[in-house]
Amino acid sequence: MTDLNIALFDKTLEQDITHKINFKTKPVGSLGSLEKVALQIALVQQSLSPELVNPHIVVFAGDHGIAKEGVSAYPQEVTYQMVMNFVNGGAAINVFCRQNGLNLQVVDAGVNYDLSGLDKVIHAKVGYGTRNFLDKPAMTETELKKCFEEGVRVVDALYDEKCNIVGFGEMGIGNTSAASMIMHKLTGLPIEKCCGKGTGLNEEQLGDKISILKEASYRVKQTGLSPEDILMEFGGYEIAMMCAAMLQVARKKMIVLVDGFIASSAFLCAYKIDPAVKEYALFCHQSEEYGHRHLLEILEVKPLLNFNLRLGEGTGCALAYPIVQNAVAFLNDMASFESAGVSNKRPE
Amino acid sequence: MTDLNIALFDKTLEQDITHKINFKTKPVGSLGSLEKVALQIALVQQSLSPELVNPHIVVFAGDHGIAKEGVSAYPQEVTYQMVMNFVNGGAAINVFCRQNGLNLQVVDAGVNYDLSGLDKVIHAKVGYGTRNFLDKPAMTETELKKCFEEGVRVVDALYDEKCNIVGFGEMGIGNTSAASMIMHKLTGLPIEKCCGKGTGLNEEQLGDKISILKEASYRVKQTGLSPEDILMEFGGYEIAMMCAAMLQVARKKMIVLVDGFIASSAFLCAYKIDPAVKEYALFCHQSEEYGHRHLLEILEVKPLLNFNLRLGEGTGCALAYPIVQNAVAFLNDMASFESAGVSNKRPE
Repeated sequence: MTDLNIALFDKTLEQDITHKINFKTKPVGSLGSLEKVALQIALVQQSLSPELVNPHIVVFAGDHGIAKEGVSAYPQEVTYQMVMNFVNGGAAINVFCRQNGLNLQVVDAGVNYDLSGLDKVIHAKVGYGTRNFLDKPAMTETELKKCFEEGVRVVDALYDEKCNIVGFGEMGIGNTSAASMIMHKLTGLPIEKCCGKGTGLNEEQLGDKISILKEASYRVKQTGLSPEDILMEFGGYEIAMMCAAMLQVARKKMIVLVDGFIASSAFLCAYKIDPAVKEYALFCHQSEEYGHRHLLEILEVKPLLNFNLRLGEGTGCALAYPIVQNAVAFLNDMASFESAGVSNKRPE
Repeated sequence: MTDLNIALFDKTLEQDITHKINFKTKPVGSLGSLEKVALQIALVQQSLSPELVNPHIVVFAGDHGIAKEGVSAYPQEVTYQMVMNFVNGGAAINVFCRQNGLNLQVVDAGVNYDLSGLDKVIHAKVGYGTRNFLDKPAMTETELKKCFEEGVRVVDALYDEKCNIVGFGEMGIGNTSAASMIMHKLTGLPIEKCCGKGTGLNEEQLGDKISILKEASYRVKQTGLSPEDILMEFGGYEIAMMCAAMLQVARKKMIVLVDGFIASSAFLCAYKIDPAVKEYALFCHQSEEYGHRHLLEILEVKPLLNFNLRLGEGTGCALAYPIVQNAVAFLNDMASFESAGVSNKRPE
């Protein structure tokens, strides 16, 4: 399913980009994280004057059989209701996309509701929700393959529209449970470190969620499973599709904005399939969801924002996007010491 | 000098604002820090539908006699050179203001250079740099009074232009030393905890800076000095003017964006003069400058961003502004559970 490798980018330009950054009218390194973002984007685009073109947020929506077990604070119908909210422009991600100049697309990856009449949605439905992974694998190999194909298709369409930066979000009641299982099986960390309160469980409900996930973990005793195996066992259609989309973004030499816990679990799968994807990824925020901090540690990344968000939908990507724009802007538009006639030396 | 008290705002609206935030289509609290920002701005404006109008960054520039002691990595002439860079649009703060839709004003609070010919600068020069506080007080009481008057004048002009949110930045070679002394004298923390590498000292130079500041501290042995006394002893014209401007912003019920270490030292003076100023303040970022984390702890605030910036100029304010806009936007524009027809209950 993953025969196309991502190109590691050419780093010969790094010295020139760093020189350009260092001779801006500011002390060396004084723009901190923004300098790293600017360098990374310049390297991805192999340009001293990178540009962000036709930026997008894509929200993949899908339902989860595990929701039957009461692992979420909300009922399953909230998934399709929120898709309707996206379509009508009323959700947080709509507001942030409008505010920050991002285009928004919503993909029906596998919502348990007939959305075929909606023309503002990208139709990529793999099924009416996954199976309950407490009892059996969440999806078949055929379904996983379709997820991967659709993820690639979505990104190829953006690429054809000259988009060169995209953030992925998700909507799916129960999907923190799927993400926790993926993280647990791919990292070997105990369930407790991979799990949190999702949209708002209390302590007792979190205890129940952990018990259910431990039981699900026990069902699949094999170790050394591939990311694809783990996605079939525990994944969501939206998570698998996002994983494939992230890999395709990198193959197309675009920038991928990584959102919170669930998006990071999709990224972890992508990273295990091809570690080069990391060079194309900007980590947007550290979520309030308990497992996310450990997942970011394992990925050895420091995200841009920490607002204690726990909403998903790609909201962290949309909020980080203006920061990314500012990073590109300083690289392109700031004066150099020479051009501005500013002294760059300490007095003797 | 400070006879006008700041009004503590009426909190009777808090319940209604919180209700509006909680019934947006998202789990309660899931927008984290943004919900706090939205609540604060709504309270300041006493409105369920707050607006940000004519946002500004004001950069106060001034020189410091202490710069003679080699406490900075850059020579003093960089202060006026950077003012020219601001005027010509080439500095980081220019780029970030353009990118984020902020208006920029530059104030000559006391640059050691004749800037009177520049019509893009607000002329409020109190002197050609402060005196060297290693030997004598940095400024006279008359000068401090003029700083306070000019700070008020700058804000009143913005208020007259309907501006309701303003971030303050600074430029002044040597001003981390002044800020360190202010923090040291107002908090009682040792110099070492109030001091950092500024624009880029090495370890040895930092040791020298600490020695010089300890000597300056020894010159002024009295304890229990007022913020005004401490500003006269160690302050900069730009810091004193910023302090007065922050107080005036709060009196006018506008929002003040607080930048990094030096701006926070000005805020500390303002806070000691009238603690109510804190209700009107949004802390934009935690600077890389070592003393800043301790100053934020003392003020008991958690800033929005942490990008390891150490540039000043109000850059942290300008970068945080889009986040503030997003906070206001979600409060105004997101659908409620009721209006969107989304279920807000866990299944029985």
